[in-house]
Amino acid sequence: MGTGLYTDLYELTMAQSYLEHGRTGHAVFSLYSRTLPAERNFLVSCGLEILIRQIELFRFGSDDLDYLSGLNTFSDTFLDWLRSYRFTGTLSAVPEGTVVFQKEPLIQLEGELPEVQVLETLVVNSIQFQTMIASKAARIMGVAGDKTVIDFGFRRAHMADAGIHAARASYIAGFSGTSNLEAGKRFGIPVVGTMAHSYVMVFPREEDAFRAFASTFPEKTLFLIDTFDTLACTKKVVALAKAGIPVIGVRIDSGDIGSLATAVRKILDENGLQSVKIFISSGIDEYAIAGLLGAGVPIDSFGVGTKFITSSDAPFLDMIYKLVEYDGRPIFKTSPGKETFPFKRQIVRHYSGDRMVCDEVVRMESPDTIPGLVTEVMRDGTCVRPMPSLDQIKTRLARDIAALPPHFRSLNKAEYPVTVRS
Amino acid sequence: MGTGLYTDLYELTMAQSYLEHGRTGHAVFSLYSRTLPAERNFLVSCGLEILIRQIELFRFGSDDLDYLSGLNTFSDTFLDWLRSYRFTGTLSAVPEGTVVFQKEPLIQLEGELPEVQVLETLVVNSIQFQTMIASKAARIMGVAGDKTVIDFGFRRAHMADAGIHAARASYIAGFSGTSNLEAGKRFGIPVVGTMAHSYVMVFPREEDAFRAFASTFPEKTLFLIDTFDTLACTKKVVALAKAGIPVIGVRIDSGDIGSLATAVRKILDENGLQSVKIFISSGIDEYAIAGLLGAGVPIDSFGVGTKFITSSDAPFLDMIYKLVEYDGRPIFKTSPGKETFPFKRQIVRHYSGDRMVCDEVVRMESPDTIPGLVTEVMRDGTCVRPMPSLDQIKTRLARDIAALPPHFRSLNKAEYPVTVRS
Repeated sequence: MGTGLYTDLYELTMAQSYLEHGRTGHAVFSLYSRTLPAERNFLVSCGLEILIRQIELFRFGSDDLDYLSGLNTFSDTFLDWLRSYRFTGTLSAVPEGTVVFQKEPLIQLEGELPEVQVLETLVVNSIQFQTMIASKAARIMGVAGDKTVIDFGFRRAHMADAGIHAARASYIAGFSGTSNLEAGKRFGIPVVGTMAHSYVMVFPREEDAFRAFASTFPEKTLFLIDTFDTLACTKKVVALAKAGIPVIGVRIDSGDIGSLATAVRKILDENGLQSVKIFISSGIDEYAIAGLLGAGVPIDSFGVGTKFITSSDAPFLDMIYKLVEYDGRPIFKTSPGKETFPFKRQIVRHYSGDRMVCDEVVRMESPDTIPGLVTEVMRDGTCVRPMPSLDQIKTRLARDIAALPPHFRSLNKAEYPVTVRS
Repeated sequence: MGTGLYTDLYELTMAQSYLEHGRTGHAVFSLYSRTLPAERNFLVSCGLEILIRQIELFRFGSDDLDYLSGLNTFSDTFLDWLRSYRFTGTLSAVPEGTVVFQKEPLIQLEGELPEVQVLETLVVNSIQFQTMIASKAARIMGVAGDKTVIDFGFRRAHMADAGIHAARASYIAGFSGTSNLEAGKRFGIPVVGTMAHSYVMVFPREEDAFRAFASTFPEKTLFLIDTFDTLACTKKVVALAKAGIPVIGVRIDSGDIGSLATAVRKILDENGLQSVKIFISSGIDEYAIAGLLGAGVPIDSFGVGTKFITSSDAPFLDMIYKLVEYDGRPIFKTSPGKETFPFKRQIVRHYSGDRMVCDEVVRMESPDTIPGLVTEVMRDGTCVRPMPSLDQIKTRLARDIAALPPHFRSLNKAEYPVTVRS
């Protein structure tokens, strides 16, 4: 399906007017965040491969053109231009799974001005969300440490597309899997899940439900134990284990998690069930995880949902797509608080040993001779670089995260030094 | 495209186990919010027509079944069940554009347990978001009064699907239009937009940009005046108007909006341009609108973006899909803080004259003899009621909003009395 109308009207009015007034010079647009949210010490670039596919599909079909024609706004000449629209320019980007900061361009698009202008809305729409979610997930993993974290967010995502791409973004950032099947199919992400409260409630007793489930899926015996009385249910799980049902874990989804998990662990351990895992899934985010693990609560895995998938503590990034160069000249804006940084840019990262120290955002020369994070990914509208697998992206990010000064992975605010060179 | 995998793994593991253990009795699931966010006095039901289409498309294609088979989790019998899956049950709902409150079921689905269970994830995913956005938009309109509000949010929406459906939800709630073309095409919503800062900056001078734009679109002369110096630019607009260019409006997108808009209005008025509208689009939400209008700042229209489309002050609703009845018996859960309300329900709204006073959520009899907000929309898996047009929904909502006690439309917290009858 074409994505040509995944844009704003003003992108097309500008484009027609550019074409009519000969403003078709070489333009460079840059996508970056002016500042990071107070609740984020770094961002994780995410969504490049998805965006490239969306750009390749940025076409105007005949029904799109009929619609646009019916607006009585556009000239026939311009509608013909849209009909043959293909992105033929250059896309430079930092790879997915790179740690980035304020003022650092994630995506830079170049080409004839109207051709690059019309992609603005789509580029921001796609990269802002995916980067926001990968960043949130990386922050969660920063406090979860070696505990397993699973994406349970699909139902509270903003429609299906957001849920599917959030699963991808969070897997890159270190989550172990997702509840969502479409993401599993599309991206090969491990899928996780067993039962909800409704399952427990349609059987006469909890133990009947668990026995039934174990008979259907003997290898997926993770039981939801908080439907009625969590501790009483733990004892029922113990009895089932003693009766020969091999229990993998128990899930708690409500109540005072700290005291319940501690008491459940005690009951399990006293009955020789040290190997049974405790899985928590109620209102979990990095703050809850830090509190629970800081208090020594015995938890093995977390399912994160609503607060993760809406990035509720920082529900948007201040990410913009700005014209930085036109026809060889720098483009500045001087609106208060909305300064732009002209020219195409490279990001140079400085290390001390294996540790990141500071970044410089410098003008990118042509040909590009300064080694840095930004590389050319599309040329003449074609992808010129093989896309890494999700596991390769995951590995790259893990390396970047390991290179961060450790306090950047905590929930305390830290600001990384980024200097924009003129 | 099928939506069968727009679900969570556990919906399917439960369904297979239900089928294996004869749990195929008649089930009723109810979608409602336990509580409203502190920042919302009411919700606006939204998304029913979209959901019905998604349910009709809830099918498992051969590639979906291949994927599921490859998980080595499901039996062939169950995969065959999925292959022939069609929703054949009943959907009862409040109409779109209805004011609703905590504990009131927006959607109730009935049928054989496994058939209704597997829709859970999709139903919450679709209705939670659309209702959250319609509710946010209605709250914005509550303070915007007779000012025009436009959806500029697409770029910061959570992927394209969210942006498209947010435009629909906000139009229902009283917005005048959207920037997004796909929403315009798909739902017939008016589309709005002229130029961005990039447009202004590629011409030698601002007045050159405005002249060029006016020559391309003589009927869309809404100029962006804050690229460099807002007041200096206003004087350029005055000069253009005096030179014969008919100016519709000016847009300010940065800076101290209160003082700038006041000063711009003064310059325009002093030059006989009382008819030129002032359009504001920088970080706008209901709090900003209330502040600006409360201070008497002369503004005609608002463009709302990021904070609107992420519902950033209340970025999720506590909306759940719960089993409330199985095989004729009520289903309760007793987890602390997560009580459920058993049985299929009708919502009875009480008025004093034209004014809403309180609601009762009562058991729905069969046949349904109590008049209320809930009506049957799908029966035997088929839509049995014509869907209203967006403008009909808009009219219905305007009537509901007018019936609210006036302080519910303000930003002060008010809690509407809802009684759940046993």
